[in-house]
Amino acid sequence: MTAFASPTAFAAALFDLKTSDGAAQSAAQARQARLTKPAGSLGRLEEIAVFFAGWQGRAQPRIERGRTIVFAGNHGVTVHGVSAFPASVTAGMVANFRAGGAAINALSRAAGLDLAVVPLEIEHPTADFTHAPAMTEPECLAALNAGAAAIDSNLDLVALGEMGIGNSTAAAALCARSLRGDAAFWVGPGTGIDSAGIARKIAVVDRALMHHEGAPRSAFETLRRVGGRETAALAGATLRARQLGIPVLLDGFICCAAIAPLFADNPAIVDHCLAGHCSAEPGHERLLERLGLDPLLRLNMRLGEGSGAVVAAGIVRAALATHNEMATFSEADIAEAL
Amino acid sequence: MTAFASPTAFAAALFDLKTSDGAAQSAAQARQARLTKPAGSLGRLEEIAVFFAGWQGRAQPRIERGRTIVFAGNHGVTVHGVSAFPASVTAGMVANFRAGGAAINALSRAAGLDLAVVPLEIEHPTADFTHAPAMTEPECLAALNAGAAAIDSNLDLVALGEMGIGNSTAAAALCARSLRGDAAFWVGPGTGIDSAGIARKIAVVDRALMHHEGAPRSAFETLRRVGGRETAALAGATLRARQLGIPVLLDGFICCAAIAPLFADNPAIVDHCLAGHCSAEPGHERLLERLGLDPLLRLNMRLGEGSGAVVAAGIVRAALATHNEMATFSEADIAEAL
Repeated sequence: MTAFASPTAFAAALFDLKTSDGAAQSAAQARQARLTKPAGSLGRLEEIAVFFAGWQGRAQPRIERGRTIVFAGNHGVTVHGVSAFPASVTAGMVANFRAGGAAINALSRAAGLDLAVVPLEIEHPTADFTHAPAMTEPECLAALNAGAAAIDSNLDLVALGEMGIGNSTAAAALCARSLRGDAAFWVGPGTGIDSAGIARKIAVVDRALMHHEGAPRSAFETLRRVGGRETAALAGATLRARQLGIPVLLDGFICCAAIAPLFADNPAIVDHCLAGHCSAEPGHERLLERLGLDPLLRLNMRLGEGSGAVVAAGIVRAALATHNEMATFSEADIAEAL
Repeated sequence: MTAFASPTAFAAALFDLKTSDGAAQSAAQARQARLTKPAGSLGRLEEIAVFFAGWQGRAQPRIERGRTIVFAGNHGVTVHGVSAFPASVTAGMVANFRAGGAAINALSRAAGLDLAVVPLEIEHPTADFTHAPAMTEPECLAALNAGAAAIDSNLDLVALGEMGIGNSTAAAALCARSLRGDAAFWVGPGTGIDSAGIARKIAVVDRALMHHEGAPRSAFETLRRVGGRETAALAGATLRARQLGIPVLLDGFICCAAIAPLFADNPAIVDHCLAGHCSAEPGHERLLERLGLDPLLRLNMRLGEGSGAVVAAGIVRAALATHNEMATFSEADIAEAL
């Protein structure tokens, strides 16, 4: 099945977003008020339970089929020396994901989530976006649909992640084109480039922004021109999850930057998303603020792969455990006054 | 077995603290450097793994026998209307813990921790500490030892929690006597008292501080005079865990306030402790700052019972999963450069 038949179909889907089930939210809120604890005393855990109730459309939401999805891609822009690591590391890490030895494997096991690894033509990097669109229209559409295809309709939670040498440069360009702010505002050290490298990244993003200045600013065109295959896939997956009413846990700077072009067109796109964490990459805090997302964790992580999203899945599980398993006042025979 | 035979023995133990195993820490750090990720990119998760390695004395620390311990007690000071709830709720909640219906039951199950519930003579509240010590010497010693007795030597993680109507008033008094700052600095709404109630709490704490002003300021005397049975038990459990080299996850304001008198005598007492979260009770943030503890979570929780500590146990599990299960660069055949 192809979720998005054309750029127009993608745009139409972005402007026709499902909403949360208000009745299920209300029922979950009413249940929270009957549980054996002072009202509101579980704080954010209560909000998470109500959020999941709304998107799953049931007063007692559950995670029985949760999945981590890691999209991987390679970037032509790496010719400019924007990363501390060679592009070959992308393929090496995909092999590591498949062998079960990466951080995201260990974290997904600990969180009880399946892991899907989706490499996107990593042997064919995108074009260098300082002088051409990163992808052709069919290439971008294929990446969006690869993202959508990773979302099975029976999932009840999706945690999104990515791997791609050079993709924090693409992420900075996506943010700058979608949310304004200059290149220096969005560029950071990524996986650990030095200050000369950061200066190179800023110059590269500036050049890209200038080159694509006159182009249409739709989500599709921004993803196509300065994104990558894995960022387009993240965008397609997020939109498809929304069509299916599946809550999404976003990861770090690159993952959230993939949503920025969609947010610029329709800010409601983040309504079914939770920010798993705020990463150490400086642009992430700024981006979360623009997106209006309050991260669940601040653990100074900056790995990507979905790592922050999947650690946060443990908090979601805690929230739903209290929501579903606690006794009510009448069950426990304690005065409702508490 | 009685861990602390006398107040003197308790003080002696507090001044003879075990230290972390430096060799195990170094081995864990070396392992972190070989795992397939950019150095430092897992942030706080890496620090947690090294912390556990040091206290468990092995390069690859594990949680196979983790336990939540909830101490419960009642407080004579409730006669002054310092809580929104009657003291009978303490017994009701202990029954709820035992029946498996409280938040801490659901959270402990989700985190894979056993749960021990230790009620401390809840039918005999402590004395009203505005005009007498809350406990006699034997009573306080019994509570300290009940705390210590809950720590089995084969545990590899302890998450501490409490339940006790009125205990946020005792906690404020413990902080004020141990760390200075006036009553208003440490008093907050607890489980949800109104502003008139907060004014009553401040007056009660002020009166207690004045009454005990001339008394010795040792940890034992502070716990005995303005603490409660469950706070003394928390202190005894924390010190006993240290003797056994077992890492401790602290919960909210009351749990951390129980450690404040020990910290005033020997600040090294917190070295084997992690702060699970920062609660919504205003004094907790101030207390964590004084104790030099950076909380793992900020989720606006204010329930007690150990709830914040146990949600944080999921982060510890994530940290140890990456530390123990990830492939090294040589295993994954990826260039060490990453």
